[in-house]
Amino acid sequence: MKLRRSERMVVISNYLINNPYQLISLNTFAEKYETAKSSISEDIGIVKKAFEEAGIGQVETVTGASGGVLFTPSISSEEAKSIAEGLCQRLSESDRILPGGYIYLSDLLSTPSILKKVGRIIAKAFSGQQIDAVMTVATKGVPLANAVAEILNVPFVIVRRDLKITEGSTVSVNYASGSSDRIEKMFLSKRSLKPNSNVLIVDDFLKGGGTISGMVSLLSEFDCHLVGVAVFADNKQIKRNLFVDYKSLLTVSKIDVKNKKVDVEIGNLFDGGV
Amino acid sequence: MKLRRSERMVVISNYLINNPYQLISLNTFAEKYETAKSSISEDIGIVKKAFEEAGIGQVETVTGASGGVLFTPSISSEEAKSIAEGLCQRLSESDRILPGGYIYLSDLLSTPSILKKVGRIIAKAFSGQQIDAVMTVATKGVPLANAVAEILNVPFVIVRRDLKITEGSTVSVNYASGSSDRIEKMFLSKRSLKPNSNVLIVDDFLKGGGTISGMVSLLSEFDCHLVGVAVFADNKQIKRNLFVDYKSLLTVSKIDVKNKKVDVEIGNLFDGGV
Repeated sequence: MKLRRSERMVVISNYLINNPYQLISLNTFAEKYETAKSSISEDIGIVKKAFEEAGIGQVETVTGASGGVLFTPSISSEEAKSIAEGLCQRLSESDRILPGGYIYLSDLLSTPSILKKVGRIIAKAFSGQQIDAVMTVATKGVPLANAVAEILNVPFVIVRRDLKITEGSTVSVNYASGSSDRIEKMFLSKRSLKPNSNVLIVDDFLKGGGTISGMVSLLSEFDCHLVGVAVFADNKQIKRNLFVDYKSLLTVSKIDVKNKKVDVEIGNLFDGGV
Repeated sequence: MKLRRSERMVVISNYLINNPYQLISLNTFAEKYETAKSSISEDIGIVKKAFEEAGIGQVETVTGASGGVLFTPSISSEEAKSIAEGLCQRLSESDRILPGGYIYLSDLLSTPSILKKVGRIIAKAFSGQQIDAVMTVATKGVPLANAVAEILNVPFVIVRRDLKITEGSTVSVNYASGSSDRIEKMFLSKRSLKPNSNVLIVDDFLKGGGTISGMVSLLSEFDCHLVGVAVFADNKQIKRNLFVDYKSLLTVSKIDVKNKKVDVEIGNLFDGGV
């Protein structure tokens, strides 16, 4: 397909956006768009400048025979903060309070346009670290893990609280379910995670921390390494026994069930800037 | 932010790719990039040509005061077919066969690069139809529903097989679980779906069809309309009582547990071309 430069800008941008964290040889583009490698190289220069000026992400060129171009999605600090502030407002809506002081989150975590933005913010908070997989627990963490994994272009693994025949052999660990003070089990399919993987744990809402601790112990069962923990929201009012650091996008500082009021602030992910 | 045309191509493409199915006023771009609306209009013309030539999608311009530009992602028929054929090969791998004749799918359905492509194919198969939400059942359907909903830029709703306190009030229906011949219950949070929504049902693997039938009856409980049903794979060997049409990306035609052999073909979604 032969295209003009301005059209090549469009298709190369699209390719990079859809293939983040992947080294792409310039020859791929040169052959695809029937153009000299030197022109493609100039194209990439323009894409790089535009992506960086608009805060879309970094474009890195690696020279040499095995070289190419690598796109790392990002988000500007201002945009990240303004997205989090918008979500604070959404989370403070009084009709989100459920009996028992729980907060209804499912609508936010099932809106792709929100998930994409949150995925970019969380991925940026761990930029520069090697991440091979994202881990979460079924069901509510799945869309969030999916969003982060999509930006990082790595697979995600889903830990389950029940045994399913379609998962094959599983490894299980016990964990203390904070809300019920009970010991429960969680399961992960044996073939879902390779040994020595560097894993980012992601979850929707952090209360007691039992689920996160469970996932951390699963990581050692799989001989994997914890890169970090990120949650969509945590609850400041709850004391927890969590022996790992975590980053939260939002922090619920107060739930007043009687007056139907939720106070939400931006989370510790923004401490010291994203 | 003042940019040159070639740079504007890049940022406008990025914006459209990240905001599909959404009417965007040309003024948004004109203000953002400090450029005359007429230049933006020319830019859009170039983006449109490049997107359509490369099979990325359609760009439609709506004239008038409330007008703007609308991007509909797509995928070429050849690319769709070649992706499905690649997945047939993956699904035929002998080590996917689990005891009981089940097939391990979780790795494919938790790889974002695969999910994105599958999302585009399924979305295209229902193009031209009004879809307000995508529905699936927890847990394995979630990433697929997420992927399709992301392309369509609509929310997805997750039906659960258990009751969770964090979902608030729920509506439940009974369904016949084909694999066990039992009647079970499925639940959907009352606030997750607005009446009169047009809903696309998506699931990972179609066996007896009980889960799909359950979701169809949930739709009528919510006064919603079924647009269609799409599954990642179905099993040709199983007789089913499903009174709605469905489209499958892949079809498992034979599982030979003894010789560890799975035969997989491209699904009925490709009948008559995508």
